[in-house]
This record gives sequence, structure tokens and C-alpha cells, in this order.
Amino acid sequence: MHRPYVQEAEIEVDPAQLEAFKAAITAQIETAVRIEPGVVALYAVCEVDNPCWVRVFEIYQDSNAYQSHLETAHFKHYKATTEKMVRSLKLLHATPIVLGAKPG
Amino acid sequence: MHRPYVQEAEIEVDPAQLEAFKAAITAQIETAVRIEPGVVALYAVCEVDNPCWVRVFEIYQDSNAYQSHLETAHFKHYKATTEKMVRSLKLLHATPIVLGAKPG
Repeated sequence: MHRPYVQEAEIEVDPAQLEAFKAAITAQIETAVRIEPGVVALYAVCEVDNPCWVRVFEIYQDSNAYQSHLETAHFKHYKATTEKMVRSLKLLHATPIVLGAKPG
Repeated sequence: MHRPYVQEAEIEVDPAQLEAFKAAITAQIETAVRIEPGVVALYAVCEVDNPCWVRVFEIYQDSNAYQSHLETAHFKHYKATTEKMVRSLKLLHATPIVLGAKPG
């Protein structure tokens, strides 16, 4: 039985590089959703009151799918590209209570 | 043109009432996703390291759909039921960068 692996990333981005960061994370997420079977959802948002604070709500099919994601070329490229744009990163592993969504 | 309305709720729950809170939020979310056309996704999770800290990542079709949600009987019932279970609540309005998800 596979259990979804859920994580939230809280990322503080250098204000001068925010647009470049958004482009890099958008490219990475679009590729991940398209080509990784175990990526269920990756939602990246900015706080309205603090636009340099980005949150990414991440749902993978299971923990293996998350581990595979970390090894992909597109994720490694994103990490290398954004290394100097990110001021802080906090990863928060979470347990689902209820993941409610309309059929896509 | 409708823009999705995205919000994250951070909720600290009384440890003694955590299971009751989970039941109440599960019922509310299942009803909202089933009967509200403007509710796109409501993902409720607990932090693995702090299970009494709940996060709800919420996507509505637009801000009108969010306002309508607040007026529903199931949401009002949930708020009344959980009022004494919640120690703190922070709502964080967010702007989407990219909302990437597999077709359901």
C-alpha cells in the first residue's frame, strides 16, 4: 500500500532575483508534473504580504517517488540555478489528514 | 478572467482534541469538495514533527468562490464545532506562481 508523501517547502528568495527564481521553479515544476509519474501535485505560491516568501506544497505518490524526484536532471538543474537566489529553505514533512480535490 | 484564490491556514490544535478536530475538518472538506463548484482543492495535513500543527492548503476558483465557501452551512458548522479545539489560527493569502498537478 502506497501512502502519499507530502512536504511543504518554505523558501525565502533574494528580492533582486525573485523573477528569475519564479521562472526557474516554474520550468522545474512543469517538467516534473509532465514527465515524473510519481509527482501528483507541486503548487508554488508567494505570500501576498511578503512576495519573497515562497511556499511549495508538494504531493508525491509515495516516498520513493519523492526520492526519485530529487535525482532527476530537471530538479538538479533547478537546485544549481537557484542556489544563489535562495536565502533560506525550510522543509516540513507532513502527514495527510484529508487531501480533497475536484477531479481534474 | 477568474484567478484562483489561494490561501494557507496554519492551525494549532489542542492535543487532547486532535482526533475530534481531524474528524470535523475531514467532514467539512469532503462536503465542500463534493457540493461547492468553486472549491478546487482543500488539502489538510499535520506536521510530522508537531502533529498538533495543521496546515490547510486551499485553492478556490476565484475570490467569490472563497467568500461563498465561508457562508456555507458545512463551513459554519465546522467553525462552531472546532471553536474550542483551536488554540491559534493564521490565514496566509497567497499568489500562485505555478499550480502544477496531474490530471485527476
